[in-house]
Amino acid sequence: MRWTQSLIPTMKETPDGAEIPSHVLMLRAGLVSQVMAGAYTYLPLGWRSLRKAAQIVREEMDAAGAVELLMPAITPISLWEQTGRVEAFGDVLIQFSVRRQNRKVQMALGPTHEEVVTDLAARYISSYRQMPITLYQIQTKFRNEERPRFGVLRTSEFLMKDAYSFDASVEDLGRSYQKMYSAYCRIFDRCGLNYLAVEAESGPIGGDASHEFMVPAANGEDTVLHCLGCGYAANVEKAEIGPLDCAAPAEPLAELRKVDTPGATTIEQVSKFLGCAPEKMVKTLIYVADGDPLAVLVRGDHEANEAKIRRAVGAQKLALADPAVIERVTGAPVGFAGPVGLREKIPVWADRAIGALRNAVTGANQADAHLTGVNLERDFQPVGFADLRNAQHGDPCPRCSARLTLRHAIEIGHVFKLGTKYSEALSARFLDGQEQLRPIIMGCYGIGVNRILAALIETSHDANGIVWPVALAPYEVFLVPVNAADPETSRVASQLHDDLTALGIDVLLDDRDQRAGVKFKDADLIGFPLRVVIGERGLKQGKIEIKWRWEDKAAMTDLDGACEQITDLVRQERGTGARFRSWQAARQKKAE
Amino acid sequence: MRWTQSLIPTMKETPDGAEIPSHVLMLRAGLVSQVMAGAYTYLPLGWRSLRKAAQIVREEMDAAGAVELLMPAITPISLWEQTGRVEAFGDVLIQFSVRRQNRKVQMALGPTHEEVVTDLAARYISSYRQMPITLYQIQTKFRNEERPRFGVLRTSEFLMKDAYSFDASVEDLGRSYQKMYSAYCRIFDRCGLNYLAVEAESGPIGGDASHEFMVPAANGEDTVLHCLGCGYAANVEKAEIGPLDCAAPAEPLAELRKVDTPGATTIEQVSKFLGCAPEKMVKTLIYVADGDPLAVLVRGDHEANEAKIRRAVGAQKLALADPAVIERVTGAPVGFAGPVGLREKIPVWADRAIGALRNAVTGANQADAHLTGVNLERDFQPVGFADLRNAQHGDPCPRCSARLTLRHAIEIGHVFKLGTKYSEALSARFLDGQEQLRPIIMGCYGIGVNRILAALIETSHDANGIVWPVALAPYEVFLVPVNAADPETSRVASQLHDDLTALGIDVLLDDRDQRAGVKFKDADLIGFPLRVVIGERGLKQGKIEIKWRWEDKAAMTDLDGACEQITDLVRQERGTGARFRSWQAARQKKAE
Repeated sequence: MRWTQSLIPTMKETPDGAEIPSHVLMLRAGLVSQVMAGAYTYLPLGWRSLRKAAQIVREEMDAAGAVELLMPAITPISLWEQTGRVEAFGDVLIQFSVRRQNRKVQMALGPTHEEVVTDLAARYISSYRQMPITLYQIQTKFRNEERPRFGVLRTSEFLMKDAYSFDASVEDLGRSYQKMYSAYCRIFDRCGLNYLAVEAESGPIGGDASHEFMVPAANGEDTVLHCLGCGYAANVEKAEIGPLDCAAPAEPLAELRKVDTPGATTIEQVSKFLGCAPEKMVKTLIYVADGDPLAVLVRGDHEANEAKIRRAVGAQKLALADPAVIERVTGAPVGFAGPVGLREKIPVWADRAIGALRNAVTGANQADAHLTGVNLERDFQPVGFADLRNAQHGDPCPRCSARLTLRHAIEIGHVFKLGTKYSEALSARFLDGQEQLRPIIMGCYGIGVNRILAALIETSHDANGIVWPVALAPYEVFLVPVNAADPETSRVASQLHDDLTALGIDVLLDDRDQRAGVKFKDADLIGFPLRVVIGERGLKQGKIEIKWRWEDKAAMTDLDGACEQITDLVRQERGTGARFRSWQAARQKKAE
Repeated sequence: MRWTQSLIPTMKETPDGAEIPSHVLMLRAGLVSQVMAGAYTYLPLGWRSLRKAAQIVREEMDAAGAVELLMPAITPISLWEQTGRVEAFGDVLIQFSVRRQNRKVQMALGPTHEEVVTDLAARYISSYRQMPITLYQIQTKFRNEERPRFGVLRTSEFLMKDAYSFDASVEDLGRSYQKMYSAYCRIFDRCGLNYLAVEAESGPIGGDASHEFMVPAANGEDTVLHCLGCGYAANVEKAEIGPLDCAAPAEPLAELRKVDTPGATTIEQVSKFLGCAPEKMVKTLIYVADGDPLAVLVRGDHEANEAKIRRAVGAQKLALADPAVIERVTGAPVGFAGPVGLREKIPVWADRAIGALRNAVTGANQADAHLTGVNLERDFQPVGFADLRNAQHGDPCPRCSARLTLRHAIEIGHVFKLGTKYSEALSARFLDGQEQLRPIIMGCYGIGVNRILAALIETSHDANGIVWPVALAPYEVFLVPVNAADPETSRVASQLHDDLTALGIDVLLDDRDQRAGVKFKDADLIGFPLRVVIGERGLKQGKIEIKWRWEDKAAMTDLDGACEQITDLVRQERGTGARFRSWQAARQKKAE
């Protein structure tokens, strides 16, 4: 391809509204163009990279035995009503009605396709002999983003690979899940991403049944707890906390005292009012677990974790109590609950960190009042201690003796054991070996294809622009004739372009009538892996210049045989991405 | 691929609601599955064929120098308001509003992308030096179908290739148009379709500026006038009519007489009431052309053609007059207009066929009355005669002495010279060589990718099922082990499957535990081009059986070397489709 025959609107300035490097660089390099908030056109270069990412996904899904199909984006609203997800998605689900002769028909644009694929399975899978099977598609998905931002990371329309496995047993689901997990690792490896497979909160099937694939990045919107010691990684919701030092500080027990705290209902307000640190305070949360209220105590600076609470108390359903219930069980309006005297009324559970508090501040179970000098055993006694809160930076690792590091990250994929939630709701049943009708056991597996690009750029750029691995680069080789007006330069460049193209190398020839400096800047901005410069001076000695984007120095090479050499270099790098990888590794080492 | 590892739900029965062969066969062969009216899932086999069609389109667009990108499906409603197409599309345009923080934002799903691409051009194309350029995408489009039917031919969501050319002059547009026209011919040739490039009504640029690509098919919803003599083809709107024999019949002139026709306002009612044939009657239509009323006379059994009328009278805008205008100029309510005495009030134009009428019946310009015995010259005289009606089956060809044939057809593509309609509405201007700011001159070029499959099947099937050309078949080779339980049969089949796959041949191995009869029926139903049967008896003699879908007889061939032979056969057929083509030609000859 020749530059002047494509549409590559590079920009010198940082565009308005672009906050993070991937957004800035995708706009500046002419990869995308915003049509409206949350909707982008992929310009020719961006679309090439996106298609390459999609093709890697496709190849690895096929290699893992998954079967590709395409479901429609428009879906009948009834499917979503059957699974209760009209409410669950809320404003995220894009709905509309259309006129069909005399009727109005209500539809939704699929934000994901569990409903549609389960309905399909209900029609066509009837026996255990038809399983295991994993179906997938690479399709445009629609989710209204209330606040679209960060370029292609948060849009209302995006390209997703969604796969769904159908199995006859939990053991088979485990195998299907593992195949997808491994395929994801290969996909992200091939894309040149440094990712973590992060344990995530799982559905009713339990176990290690859900992983998010995260690329650590300073501007990531997700947070991950990662142990650099043993490699343990989990999202905030899921991360366990290792054994804590629970010895209370050597501080004499103070007197229990009630203090007025008019209108101070939050930790922050009480902390300001009484001049005490949040880590000296106890947050008392009233939940309803399977219909019965209970109290959970966490330190003022900690966040309660509902999944952990649900598991600790053995509940199916758990939700924060509404104000009426709180008032009934504590005798006080919301914001003044405390553990003292509460155990007579409802079970009180405490996070393990509560065990190390002395002379704490808690609500007084009375409007506009708190207690100070509150102490475990003397003043209150929980029915049990457990890990009930979100992990924080510096918490002990649950697997080794190191500490957890909080890292920001971009989610690029998710594998999840669904169990029978959808197959039960949509009557997708099969006859097992004993001729018994049972719900199909499902898993679901998503990859945000656009996010592969954004995550790569977010973590692989320098001051001059993007640094693409060969696997995802819009073109593998960028040919720069220094002076396109020189006939010999132009002839050689053209010949090399044609020869490389014929050998299956993706080449872009910068045939613009521009100064070499402009072309070099654009080469770095867009980030083509291999830059080949054809200059008059070099040509006189039969030489051209070759330079990898991630290396500082260019090398001169003989024009004679250059086509073969370039082809070899690109093919080697296609296979393993070894050069890109070693640059990445060196860079990361330097950063640490 | 092995049958048992995919999802191929073939059906013996004709599914409910499927009316035409392509719909019936796509469902029966397990290519698609309906999710709701107007929305289909492409099952694994259907999706493979659709992707092959899309890839052929992509290759030929690239070869023609068009550049691929991807625009979003969701678009701001404001773009459609700027071009006035919110009204023009009406209920076809799928609109919705979404919540964005505190605002509601109105959007539309793109039914086509002239607006979005012109907006893009307005941003990035500013000079004649950046043109010519043709941008294209292969994308899911959304158009509400009030009556979805005929399977994938009329759906609310479909895969479309839409391309848009941008040029600095009308001459350049002509070249861009011709490139697309030629690419379309190559695409449809490669897909094995017998198509006509049909002249269609063009926009303001005029000339031969629009062609529809049509596949003649008994169940097509479009109609084409086709001259089997010289090849002239045009749609009903566009088709010209050759010289007519305008000699009036040798019938004595009758007396002009007014007759009562109470409540009879249509040709059909008057024809019944008076017992006269529609071809003896004159339809008098009152139009408003650029603000002034005029009358158009066509024979009672003919359809007026507004594009022809517009051209004949030299008007920019033409529309049927509303009842108030009709009453004012004719003095009678709608349904009773006639030419006698009308010329004093407004210009009267007549279709050429009116010249051959004698003793006609017309309205009397008076409520509930018609005239009989109306004759040209004696009773009325038009200001001019012209071709003002739609062509019909049997009309003379405008180019040769043969007669036009009316053919039903399926539209699969359309090329169109847009001119400056969108660039003017959306301010897409460029500086020309003289530094003058001018609107970009555009063309648009669409292909319904799903329709390629439906049109192929509609015209390429027999009583047993689909007959695919190699280019579009979901798999090129279908391997049938007659008795999969026989270890040697199974081993040979498996080996052949692996060897062919390694050589890049698309193979499906029917490893089902089914009788051979079932497998043969499915082979014909789905229509794989090359069927390879591995039987115990043959194997004992070192032979396997090979059969093309379109041939009646199978041939035995040596197992030794069979892999190479099959590969050669498939590769030859991939290149030219010669065997498929010759079957098609023989079949068509037989039909004629």
